[in-house]
Amino acid sequence: MLYIIGLGLGDEKDITVKGLEAVKSCDVLFLESYTSILPGIKKDRLEEFYGKKIEEADRYCVESECEKVILERAKTQCVGFLVVGDPFGATTHTDMVIRAREMNIQVEVIHNASIMNAVGVCGLQLYQFGITVSLVFFTENWKPDSFYDKIKKNRECGLHTLCLLDIKVKEPTEECLLKPHLKKYMPPRFMTINQAIDELLEIEHLRKEGVYNEDTYCVGLARVGAQDQQVVYGTMKELRELDWGEPLHSLVICAPDKDIHFLEKEHLEFYSVKNYLKRKQ
Amino acid sequence: MLYIIGLGLGDEKDITVKGLEAVKSCDVLFLESYTSILPGIKKDRLEEFYGKKIEEADRYCVESECEKVILERAKTQCVGFLVVGDPFGATTHTDMVIRAREMNIQVEVIHNASIMNAVGVCGLQLYQFGITVSLVFFTENWKPDSFYDKIKKNRECGLHTLCLLDIKVKEPTEECLLKPHLKKYMPPRFMTINQAIDELLEIEHLRKEGVYNEDTYCVGLARVGAQDQQVVYGTMKELRELDWGEPLHSLVICAPDKDIHFLEKEHLEFYSVKNYLKRKQ
Repeated sequence: MLYIIGLGLGDEKDITVKGLEAVKSCDVLFLESYTSILPGIKKDRLEEFYGKKIEEADRYCVESECEKVILERAKTQCVGFLVVGDPFGATTHTDMVIRAREMNIQVEVIHNASIMNAVGVCGLQLYQFGITVSLVFFTENWKPDSFYDKIKKNRECGLHTLCLLDIKVKEPTEECLLKPHLKKYMPPRFMTINQAIDELLEIEHLRKEGVYNEDTYCVGLARVGAQDQQVVYGTMKELRELDWGEPLHSLVICAPDKDIHFLEKEHLEFYSVKNYLKRKQ
Repeated sequence: MLYIIGLGLGDEKDITVKGLEAVKSCDVLFLESYTSILPGIKKDRLEEFYGKKIEEADRYCVESECEKVILERAKTQCVGFLVVGDPFGATTHTDMVIRAREMNIQVEVIHNASIMNAVGVCGLQLYQFGITVSLVFFTENWKPDSFYDKIKKNRECGLHTLCLLDIKVKEPTEECLLKPHLKKYMPPRFMTINQAIDELLEIEHLRKEGVYNEDTYCVGLARVGAQDQQVVYGTMKELRELDWGEPLHSLVICAPDKDIHFLEKEHLEFYSVKNYLKRKQ
């Protein structure tokens, strides 16, 4: 038996009652630790809350050793695979379900909130979002910009764009890429809203198609669902200057002003930089 | 204090641990009963599980009497407003947050799964969905078809479309529209996948822009997150012939075949009509 259990977004208490019951019934628990990770949902806090040991499942474990390490055990034991957010935010877990079914393992999915729906907290209507884009950390020679065309299309259609920001957890060092047995990893990195805006503007500067600029209105969201959630509405220029604190961050590039509903505007006003700074005082 | 608490999608145990703690601390509980409703999440089952009374909040209560009935009480008491799915699936609840803040009431939102992210269970990637559309019950003289242009755009862009299907709960009868004090309501109606496909094809037949047809591949999803969840992949023609059982139903119109990732295809194959009928035997 394999349970794939969404943990939601805030802390260890964002698991559902159904999910917690499944966890309690499991012989083995894995925590997927590379597609998403949250400050409030750390292995030790979960272990304390569940009263059970948890094994961390990094990218290598899930993508290359899934059959051996996870699925073989699920043939005879009750295995729980814990995923931050909802189980189907990331492609990999779909893949795991397919493989498990091929091995005749019973799979049960327990859903939870993900940033894909919780982003609605900023007051923008989920029905007004176009395709979601992902921003990855640029390197000197690798600056993938496929997000640009997608944002362009969304804005042309009067839609908001949710930008998911890169996280790098347990990335092998360059040395380690050559000698995998070394198992040396770079420190985890989480893209900030500030970095995301820099990348966005860098690509606009290169492509020059006028999709957005420093004055384009966005909503920054940090730690959605957590006690210290931070949601601020302002221009790219304004949001780039703010301190967003701990991960995880996401960014919404709003539809052009004329396409924003008045109710959305009322809500955004509450989150404006001005009001945000006033509340902070 | 106002808690807006998402109940998730399956049954009373899909509330989060955090949500359940909030419920326990509340003096008054309302269940929003008109934007969504699920067979597994009914007032009496929730009351039994929580050990508390719940008041039903219909459209009139939430839209017209919100201040008086809900927010006034939240000034001095701890009020829980329960919403099936995630709190921000529907515009109305955004509006309630704005009004509460204007009245200086502290608001806390507790997220949960909604169909907007749980639809990922069918194996289609959430990042490959365009704008979501809503289908409403046609009447003889009112056949709103704004979904058609949106589906067209999504398919042109190689994207899937999630179609949310109408529900009508506590709709006043025609007699009652003239004499509101009568408080007579029509029986609740939930659009089935079969009805949705009929409406879609009716509009294609009228508009003739070749956006989709009987042979277009879709995924039908009924009761996502519940024990008896039903997910089937097939053409509109095939899916229209199936019995989908109890509400709630949703429908995904897939991107054109060439735009579907091979991993998505592998997963869809598992849900194909052929395999579905085989499993049912």
